[in-house]
Amino acid sequence: MIDIKWTELVNTLLVYSAKIGILLIVFLIVAPLGKKLISSLLRKSTSTKRVSEARALTLEKLLINVFSYTLIFIFVVMFFGIIGLEIGPLIAGAGVIGLAVAFGAQGLVSDIVTGFFILLEKQVDVGDYVTTAGYNGVVEEIGLRTTQLRGFDGTLHYVPNREITGVSNHSRGNMRALVDIGISYEDSIDHAISVLKSVCAEFEADVRFEEAPDVIGVQAFGSSEVVLRIIGRTINGEQWSAERDIRKRVKEAFDENNIEIPYPHQVNVVKN
Amino acid sequence: MIDIKWTELVNTLLVYSAKIGILLIVFLIVAPLGKKLISSLLRKSTSTKRVSEARALTLEKLLINVFSYTLIFIFVVMFFGIIGLEIGPLIAGAGVIGLAVAFGAQGLVSDIVTGFFILLEKQVDVGDYVTTAGYNGVVEEIGLRTTQLRGFDGTLHYVPNREITGVSNHSRGNMRALVDIGISYEDSIDHAISVLKSVCAEFEADVRFEEAPDVIGVQAFGSSEVVLRIIGRTINGEQWSAERDIRKRVKEAFDENNIEIPYPHQVNVVKN
Amino acid sequence: MIDIKWTELVNTLLVYSAKIGILLIVFLIVAPLGKKLISSLLRKSTSTKRVSEARALTLEKLLINVFSYTLIFIFVVMFFGIIGLEIGPLIAGAGVIGLAVAFGAQGLVSDIVTGFFILLEKQVDVGDYVTTAGYNGVVEEIGLRTTQLRGFDGTLHYVPNREITGVSNHSRGNMRALVDIGISYEDSIDHAISVLKSVCAEFEADVRFEEAPDVIGVQAFGSSEVVLRIIGRTINGEQWSAERDIRKRVKEAFDENNIEIPYPHQVNVVKN
Amino acid sequence: MIDIKWTELVNTLLVYSAKIGILLIVFLIVAPLGKKLISSLLRKSTSTKRVSEARALTLEKLLINVFSYTLIFIFVVMFFGIIGLEIGPLIAGAGVIGLAVAFGAQGLVSDIVTGFFILLEKQVDVGDYVTTAGYNGVVEEIGLRTTQLRGFDGTLHYVPNREITGVSNHSRGNMRALVDIGISYEDSIDHAISVLKSVCAEFEADVRFEEAPDVIGVQAFGSSEVVLRIIGRTINGEQWSAERDIRKRVKEAFDENNIEIPYPHQVNVVKN
Amino acid sequence: MIDIKWTELVNTLLVYSAKIGILLIVFLIVAPLGKKLISSLLRKSTSTKRVSEARALTLEKLLINVFSYTLIFIFVVMFFGIIGLEIGPLIAGAGVIGLAVAFGAQGLVSDIVTGFFILLEKQVDVGDYVTTAGYNGVVEEIGLRTTQLRGFDGTLHYVPNREITGVSNHSRGNMRALVDIGISYEDSIDHAISVLKSVCAEFEADVRFEEAPDVIGVQAFGSSEVVLRIIGRTINGEQWSAERDIRKRVKEAFDENNIEIPYPHQVNVVKN
Amino acid sequence: MIDIKWTELVNTLLVYSAKIGILLIVFLIVAPLGKKLISSLLRKSTSTKRVSEARALTLEKLLINVFSYTLIFIFVVMFFGIIGLEIGPLIAGAGVIGLAVAFGAQGLVSDIVTGFFILLEKQVDVGDYVTTAGYNGVVEEIGLRTTQLRGFDGTLHYVPNREITGVSNHSRGNMRALVDIGISYEDSIDHAISVLKSVCAEFEADVRFEEAPDVIGVQAFGSSEVVLRIIGRTINGEQWSAERDIRKRVKEAFDENNIEIPYPHQVNVVKN
Amino acid sequence: MIDIKWTELVNTLLVYSAKIGILLIVFLIVAPLGKKLISSLLRKSTSTKRVSEARALTLEKLLINVFSYTLIFIFVVMFFGIIGLEIGPLIAGAGVIGLAVAFGAQGLVSDIVTGFFILLEKQVDVGDYVTTAGYNGVVEEIGLRTTQLRGFDGTLHYVPNREITGVSNHSRGNMRALVDIGISYEDSIDHAISVLKSVCAEFEADVRFEEAPDVIGVQAFGSSEVVLRIIGRTINGEQWSAERDIRKRVKEAFDENNIEIPYPHQVNVVKN
Repeated sequence: MIDIKWTELVNTLLVYSAKIGILLIVFLIVAPLGKKLISSLLRKSTSTKRVSEARALTLEKLLINVFSYTLIFIFVVMFFGIIGLEIGPLIAGAGVIGLAVAFGAQGLVSDIVTGFFILLEKQVDVGDYVTTAGYNGVVEEIGLRTTQLRGFDGTLHYVPNREITGVSNHSRGNMRALVDIGISYEDSIDHAISVLKSVCAEFEADVRFEEAPDVIGVQAFGSSEVVLRIIGRTINGEQWSAERDIRKRVKEAFDENNIEIPYPHQVNVVKN
Repeated sequence: MIDIKWTELVNTLLVYSAKIGILLIVFLIVAPLGKKLISSLLRKSTSTKRVSEARALTLEKLLINVFSYTLIFIFVVMFFGIIGLEIGPLIAGAGVIGLAVAFGAQGLVSDIVTGFFILLEKQVDVGDYVTTAGYNGVVEEIGLRTTQLRGFDGTLHYVPNREITGVSNHSRGNMRALVDIGISYEDSIDHAISVLKSVCAEFEADVRFEEAPDVIGVQAFGSSEVVLRIIGRTINGEQWSAERDIRKRVKEAFDENNIEIPYPHQVNVVKN
Repeated sequence: MIDIKWTELVNTLLVYSAKIGILLIVFLIVAPLGKKLISSLLRKSTSTKRVSEARALTLEKLLINVFSYTLIFIFVVMFFGIIGLEIGPLIAGAGVIGLAVAFGAQGLVSDIVTGFFILLEKQVDVGDYVTTAGYNGVVEEIGLRTTQLRGFDGTLHYVPNREITGVSNHSRGNMRALVDIGISYEDSIDHAISVLKSVCAEFEADVRFEEAPDVIGVQAFGSSEVVLRIIGRTINGEQWSAERDIRKRVKEAFDENNIEIPYPHQVNVVKN
Repeated sequence: MIDIKWTELVNTLLVYSAKIGILLIVFLIVAPLGKKLISSLLRKSTSTKRVSEARALTLEKLLINVFSYTLIFIFVVMFFGIIGLEIGPLIAGAGVIGLAVAFGAQGLVSDIVTGFFILLEKQVDVGDYVTTAGYNGVVEEIGLRTTQLRGFDGTLHYVPNREITGVSNHSRGNMRALVDIGISYEDSIDHAISVLKSVCAEFEADVRFEEAPDVIGVQAFGSSEVVLRIIGRTINGEQWSAERDIRKRVKEAFDENNIEIPYPHQVNVVKN
Repeated sequence: MIDIKWTELVNTLLVYSAKIGILLIVFLIVAPLGKKLISSLLRKSTSTKRVSEARALTLEKLLINVFSYTLIFIFVVMFFGIIGLEIGPLIAGAGVIGLAVAFGAQGLVSDIVTGFFILLEKQVDVGDYVTTAGYNGVVEEIGLRTTQLRGFDGTLHYVPNREITGVSNHSRGNMRALVDIGISYEDSIDHAISVLKSVCAEFEADVRFEEAPDVIGVQAFGSSEVVLRIIGRTINGEQWSAERDIRKRVKEAFDENNIEIPYPHQVNVVKN
Repeated sequence: MIDIKWTELVNTLLVYSAKIGILLIVFLIVAPLGKKLISSLLRKSTSTKRVSEARALTLEKLLINVFSYTLIFIFVVMFFGIIGLEIGPLIAGAGVIGLAVAFGAQGLVSDIVTGFFILLEKQVDVGDYVTTAGYNGVVEEIGLRTTQLRGFDGTLHYVPNREITGVSNHSRGNMRALVDIGISYEDSIDHAISVLKSVCAEFEADVRFEEAPDVIGVQAFGSSEVVLRIIGRTINGEQWSAERDIRKRVKEAFDENNIEIPYPHQVNVVKN
Repeated sequence: MIDIKWTELVNTLLVYSAKIGILLIVFLIVAPLGKKLISSLLRKSTSTKRVSEARALTLEKLLINVFSYTLIFIFVVMFFGIIGLEIGPLIAGAGVIGLAVAFGAQGLVSDIVTGFFILLEKQVDVGDYVTTAGYNGVVEEIGLRTTQLRGFDGTLHYVPNREITGVSNHSRGNMRALVDIGISYEDSIDHAISVLKSVCAEFEADVRFEEAPDVIGVQAFGSSEVVLRIIGRTINGEQWSAERDIRKRVKEAFDENNIEIPYPHQVNVVKN
């Protein structure tokens, strides 16, 4: 006679039910707790960094999404594990394909991890002028996967975040204006410096300058000229126009004072 | 006597049937649900990005294909697992070969993952003029594995998508036209600038320009010339012809006003 | 007395036989089905791409070979698994050596995967003139592991397919003929352009041109010359001879019209 | 009758309780012990390196955080393991995704590991002028993930710590001032050296110098000049202004002594 | 009393014997079969490629060696597995060291895999003049691990086969002889071409040429000369001496016809 | 009645105790033995290499530390394993995080492994002048993780040991002093060589030289000069000052003998 | 009553003893056999390559060491495995740390593997002049981990063997002496060649030459000179002095025959 072992079956079912029950309870507790933890942690860490409301919300939404999907995945796998459906070999079987995918997709994950920190640490803001990954331009959009830069000539650069290994942000604080001027070896250095100092004095009242430009001395002996250097600090973004204006005024002042910006020189020893 | 344990056999079969039954039911529920989820998710994410109908369909088809193949693979492995055919060692055994394949095929996966996001994020469109992966040209076709660019000289570049680590899209928005002109150190900067400004004025009505060109000042002290710069914004694709026309007009205006674009200079100190 | 448990033995044998039976049946079904699937899939995907009959056959043969070897491998391992010969540790043991092999052989796999797609996607054909992986030449043979290019100087380049990360195919569609000509700063741009235009007109009837060459304007201010550019579209492969002929005619036309192609200029300021 | 095996159940529970009990006790002992160990170890290792109080606290906090999270993670997993919830397959299942994440996140871990050692070993301090990872500037902030450098032109560089493979710290100890001066092949080397030595003597009392500059001899035969070299040691940060002043004085002394800093020379053999 | 279960022991031994027996039989069948398969496969694949007898033997010996060692390894591990000596943990334990070894030895494996295909595909032969991996020279020896090239200056280059990512074989088929000649902008292009054509005609009977050299036209406008190009096809290895002879004859023909190969030109605008 | 199986429990405990006992005994034997082995091995290997006492102690301390930590780790894990606390899944679970950490920390391990061998093999000593990893300077400190170089200009370079892939040690043995001198094509080579030989003779008694400098002949035909070369061997560190002195004496001797160190020459063919 | 199952215990012990016994016997057979095999294999493979006695001994010692350590490691692990001490989890637990170590130590393994083959294949000998890994010099010592090169200037380069991806050995066989001489475009090529041939003839009896130098023709048209080339084969190491002597004699012969080695030429078109 076929003697089905009811006792054992019931026992097994009981154990199963108990396990699933514990599982459910754990998840029902973990889910809201985790979400709250994320929210509060993020708020604390962003509040100290003055991250804008909108950005904080984006990050929160992202993190809670990731958390939810992970939880669902874990629940499903554990559920199957308890029921005893042999999910182990399946997963192992998926490993070979999975490995290829993992290799292929690591770039994607790397993009998102880096993107997350760029957003959180506020390394760049929309509107900043930055140099990164061999591109430079004004930031148009910062995404989790790509950052968009508008180059000077109008080109739009899409940079995957993983390529952003270092960021040079040109929009953080004052900038230096720097102009190198070559004078002839025949001219008096002292005279040239005094003329340049008078030019620099004209820019003292210039609102573009945080710190008026000044002559710092003989920077180098060029092959045909003695190089003098002017340095000043300007408001961010004004350094280029300031440099252009200094250059124009220097040329004019030199013309007035008969100081020559020399052409390349060569001594010709003539033989026949 | 050979005493076949019928009871046990039936019990085992019962368990097997139950397991396979659950498996089937789960799959019959998951399959249509997953497909629907994909469709709706994709539609939502693409609708906000104004992806064209055709492109959305391509993506949807791709994702559902991937989903179906994965489901079939999972079903088969789980089925074998339940029956008890020792698929574990097989899969482990496949691991060594699999690893080599995984390494070899990661490029393929990487291509498809990147291709998917290029399609989804609309980084490039057919007809855009782009620079990427060391190639530049007009996009002829965007595939999941390769993107085809038509170079300026007519060459067709096949670029695997994984090589596209950054995209410079020259067809997004207005472009800058930029012309640098060198004038002699002997010429008056003010005079030259006024001539250049009158040339720029001629282009004010030019429909190619979004923002008429203007002289921005002394860009640099060259070894033989003072470099002045003209900058303007043009409609996309018109920057090159605009630059060519500015150059021609500048040369003519300089000729009329006796302003010289200087040759390289050298001071020769003659000895014998 | 030694009491051999015949019942159990028979039972075990029965289970074994059943398992092997199922295994056999599954394989006998899967083998022909798989082969058919490959054939039909390949035919469908190649028919839409107009792949030549011979090439399609090569691909089909390759895929069926790979499929057969995989099936045999799977069958053998599963057979051993059922018999209970401990193949698990063996395979694990092979892992260390296998890993080294996998690393070493990944290049081979990568070659074949890339080769497969180059064949399937028809990126290059025998006879195409291409640039890839730092080599350029005419394709002599496309293999699954290597592609052979015949360089211009007669050298035969063997390029492993995995090195082919991007292909520039110079034999797809019309090519541009481009000639840059420098004229003196003293010469009239308008005059030079009208002479060049008359030269271009001579090529209107030339069968090598799809689109007759034309002068597009002032391309650049060189240090000693104003650079004018001529552009035209030619039939593939004719761009070089077309360019050579344009160059010869331009030189002759300039000679007739006393327009000079200037030597490098230098202004010498003489001092003693 | 369904005969629930109470004995066995109680036995099992007993074993469970015992195991969890041991686990709890072990953790209650390990947790405070570990924290104390970290504190004392860190204090010992930092005290010998004169790390500032604030920095030591940061490191301690970080290490205790890491330790706590690890402990919690271990406890949870072991707890599940004891209860018998099948966490094994789950974890294996997470492996594929995990692998991708591991690849993607390795940069992050690498950042933190390197950051930890940069902090601990005091390779850079806030305010140091350093060159690293292709950037150079003054250190504004050293974080666990990124280090911020303020470039000379005002740009703020964000450098991920993993990119810091080598650090050139320009703010550790005295610096060398080095000036190369070319004299004519016609001038007497001895005369020039004596003039330079008298210039160097003027700087003997200069507080910027740790070791007064001196002429070390004929450094090279240039194509048009004999190169003499002056070397001295200055207080950190004063090397540039010292060099500028030496250059100015050398030029003036040479002018007084009729020693020429020669222009590039060329012998012209004139033919007709 | 100690009651040794003889029955069970005998049963176990019986199972063991059976397993080992099957194992032995399988191996005794597989070994000779495998060797034969390798021989016949290799012969077939090499016969179609006209691989020399000696080379085929080398490959066969290598493959049979690899096959034998693998078989022995498999046999030993399976034998231990059957006896029940716990070889699993051992192998796992070897994993860590093994991984390091695998990483370290992958170069070796990669060398051999590449070497095998270089031999099989006959990419290079002893005596060929090739460029590969940054070296170029005449092949002296092709080994499984390294290939030896004799450089032009006599240096012997040992190149690990894995470095051979692309091979440029200069000894396969005819080569092109190419000579570029610059003529003065003042000289008539037609005249120069007719002179060059007469020079080319002299080489028509030259046995070194497969295809007599010819003038193909105006290759470029140089800064001081119009560049004409001569191209011909020579027997392999004769291209350099052919080029040298063409150059000598061109110079002589130009001298006779008063055509100048111009020096670099410069227009000097003299100012005072 | 709940019937606790005391017998079984005691049996289990007995087995446990036995296992732990064996474990303890093994460790108590292995620990001191291992330490002694390390000490004696290190002493033997360092004594033959004349490693300084202090350095040998550092290495010994490091190795014994590593050994102790490893032993403790092994003991703890085996202890848990015996008790039966499920440490397996925990460790597997740690794998994903561990993998990321392993990737991130491999640099650290690589630093220490390389550092160990640099110390052991005495590739560099404190005070040596070396070039490595793109930096060069005098070694200030050799650590297990980083090596510090003091650059010539005073900069302190921190080089992670893993970056030290090759070391050029300039402080091992005598150095060569090498001076190249160009003489005019018009001057007699024999005359110039005899003058140079007399200069070299002056340095015969110079204590800086191990091997007096000598003229080795015509090194090259420069575009404007015939290059002669002088070579000698000096005590380590004296090569630069020796070269400077040779240069000075050569110039003076040439002046006395009317041998010219020529300027760059150019033949000017004048046209109008 | 506690009823210890003596029978079972004894049985277990019996099985254990048997297993350990087999293990011991296997190892006692394998150990000497393995060592003998290594010795004989190495001797055979080195005898055919004429490896020096000392080198063969070094290799043998190394291989036997590696073999012994491996055997001990295997024995210990298998012993623990048989006793049933849970070594599995321990090893798995070591995996994470092990992975980091494996990554970090792979360089070391790679060094030794490469070093082994450099020694075995005799790619370099002590005293050879080689170029490898960006360094070049005379080999001073070949170790398993590093190879030491003495650079020409006296620097000692330590090159890790893994960096040695290709070796250019300049001390294997005869070397080519090569001298390029430029003659004026005005001079007769035939005359110059005949003079050069007479110079070459002088070196026919020179013992340094294996093959007397000869003029091979017009190598190139330089911008200012026609380049002629002399090539000869010399005994190894004598190529440089041979080249120097040829250069000296060519200059003298040209002076006697009024053939000019021309300076760079330029045609100056003078304008005012």
